[in-house]
Amino acid sequence: MDVQMVPWQDLREYCKNLLMSQGLMEEQAFVAADNLVDADLCGVESHGVSRMTIYMKRLETKVVSSKFEVKTEQEYPGSLEIDACNSMGICVGAYAMKRCIEKAKEAGSCFAAVKHSNHYGMASYYVRMAAEQGMIGITGTNAPPNIAPWGSRQSYVGTNPIAMSAPTNGMPMILDMAPSTVAMGKVILAAKLGNSIPEGWALTKEGEPTTDPKLGMKGTVVPIGGPKGYGLSLFMDVFSGILSGAQFGPHLNNMWNDFEHPQDVGHFFIAVDISKFTDPGLFRDRVDMMIAEIKSLPKKDGVNEIMVPGELEYRRKEERKKNGIPLSTVVYEELRALAKRYQVAFTI
Amino acid sequence: MDVQMVPWQDLREYCKNLLMSQGLMEEQAFVAADNLVDADLCGVESHGVSRMTIYMKRLETKVVSSKFEVKTEQEYPGSLEIDACNSMGICVGAYAMKRCIEKAKEAGSCFAAVKHSNHYGMASYYVRMAAEQGMIGITGTNAPPNIAPWGSRQSYVGTNPIAMSAPTNGMPMILDMAPSTVAMGKVILAAKLGNSIPEGWALTKEGEPTTDPKLGMKGTVVPIGGPKGYGLSLFMDVFSGILSGAQFGPHLNNMWNDFEHPQDVGHFFIAVDISKFTDPGLFRDRVDMMIAEIKSLPKKDGVNEIMVPGELEYRRKEERKKNGIPLSTVVYEELRALAKRYQVAFTI
Repeated sequence: MDVQMVPWQDLREYCKNLLMSQGLMEEQAFVAADNLVDADLCGVESHGVSRMTIYMKRLETKVVSSKFEVKTEQEYPGSLEIDACNSMGICVGAYAMKRCIEKAKEAGSCFAAVKHSNHYGMASYYVRMAAEQGMIGITGTNAPPNIAPWGSRQSYVGTNPIAMSAPTNGMPMILDMAPSTVAMGKVILAAKLGNSIPEGWALTKEGEPTTDPKLGMKGTVVPIGGPKGYGLSLFMDVFSGILSGAQFGPHLNNMWNDFEHPQDVGHFFIAVDISKFTDPGLFRDRVDMMIAEIKSLPKKDGVNEIMVPGELEYRRKEERKKNGIPLSTVVYEELRALAKRYQVAFTI
Repeated sequence: MDVQMVPWQDLREYCKNLLMSQGLMEEQAFVAADNLVDADLCGVESHGVSRMTIYMKRLETKVVSSKFEVKTEQEYPGSLEIDACNSMGICVGAYAMKRCIEKAKEAGSCFAAVKHSNHYGMASYYVRMAAEQGMIGITGTNAPPNIAPWGSRQSYVGTNPIAMSAPTNGMPMILDMAPSTVAMGKVILAAKLGNSIPEGWALTKEGEPTTDPKLGMKGTVVPIGGPKGYGLSLFMDVFSGILSGAQFGPHLNNMWNDFEHPQDVGHFFIAVDISKFTDPGLFRDRVDMMIAEIKSLPKKDGVNEIMVPGELEYRRKEERKKNGIPLSTVVYEELRALAKRYQVAFTI
């Protein structure tokens, strides 16, 4: 695959400028660009700047509001119900987790539900915010359907991710997982890049296994553990969509081809203040001990090192911050086209 | 398999009496018996009265305290840190979820962590308590190791379950899943009954696939989605063990063969008051709509009906409440032996 190495700050600045060209305030444009570039730094290209074209198109067509507006509809010591007013999902996500963290400092924990939102990018971004404040973070979101309920051949729930974090004395431990073998984003990216996909990732519309990402995109992805992955995804939808008052299942509008109706995505966020349970230093030391013990276990043949959740992404990020982000030429050229379309200087 | 049909109330009463013979107060003995019999009603035999022998032995050897004692170590509007004082896990679990529900009525949500506890039976029991109060419930626990971290061949984390619930206008929707293909309890039960296990359930100590549950018991069970199931289990341990101040990973003592050291299990519980986010009637209607839509999707060949999480267990429960619980003869005879050992009338 042809790649172009791009310094991450340049990429973030450029994406920020693109977003500002569509009316976003600098603070919000920065957060959205930061989330996308963070995904590319972590090696989660499916949720990175390859999404800029669709994000920009949705702002341009005004199906996503460029104005950042949020309404707190209900608030209690340990809860927040937020109306995102069709603002960009990433901006609302960062706002909601920030408020959760503040409230958890008083209440011990806080659970926030967000309605009338949009695609919120990479979920790990929000739980890392909590870990950086010495807290446990949990988040989930819903998304348009691409997993079939167990026993059915038609999709109903999205690859609704769940993400969790725990602070350590060094790298935070972060799990960010779709309840499917892979996120649909990876199937979409493979289609964009013209690659095939391994069997076990996706099924066709008829429920048959496929290695063609274009057929997989129209079909469903395979849930982990069969009914378990389906059940997990369904509950992410209940917590994100039904609890908040957003849409759910097939009632969520599609990000890729519907430019008339807002998506009405829902999210949830949990922050837990560790100091309200145990000594935070002891907590971090014990997670470090857990990690050290895991890394010293006997390895399977052919395995160089045992990793903990988030470690691979953390290392990639360190490396890419130094050496640049390897953007595929397809994505690089897409970004160049955006400069022209939106009259923004192409600075990467 | 030879079975003995037993009325569920008789079974619960008998188990309660057994537990009281070891010094439990009636209220706690009832809760513990209710959780175990509930598992059998739901068809989750691995967590049912087949555990009575080990529970009784642990009480008899005083490695589990028969005195129900709990200390609230820290309390904030949305959080609870509880010391279980080595009481029975089920009794403490029911207590912790009850307090979470009460606190969530004020704070919107509550997160409780419990340390110095013991095996807490079937996790779905606690989240159903929340659903019965019109709330969302979430819980998890840790357990001695039987899953190998991804890349290793030695177990480090338990098949730490996560359970979630949502109320409807009828049957609550309940997910209760181990992060492995099956719970180790099912492997243990197969060994007890002399059955073989399907490939894909367990690995030997050397990391090789096996269909012999006795080898699987000494080895590890297979996490769902590979690194995802491992990651999920690890976070259940962080939330249950490390946050609460209980033990974690291989530092948890074994329930089956260590009668000197308390297990020091940890759990966590979350209750979310739906009325602090949306109209509870609307919430229930929308979950019902979700369920109805899922059940009307096109089915795969050979599938009679599409189920939602918890439905199979709910139906079994209805049926077994009417017709009795089919106890395997092995378990039935174990229960009879307990009557003699603990001088309790055998009434089932």
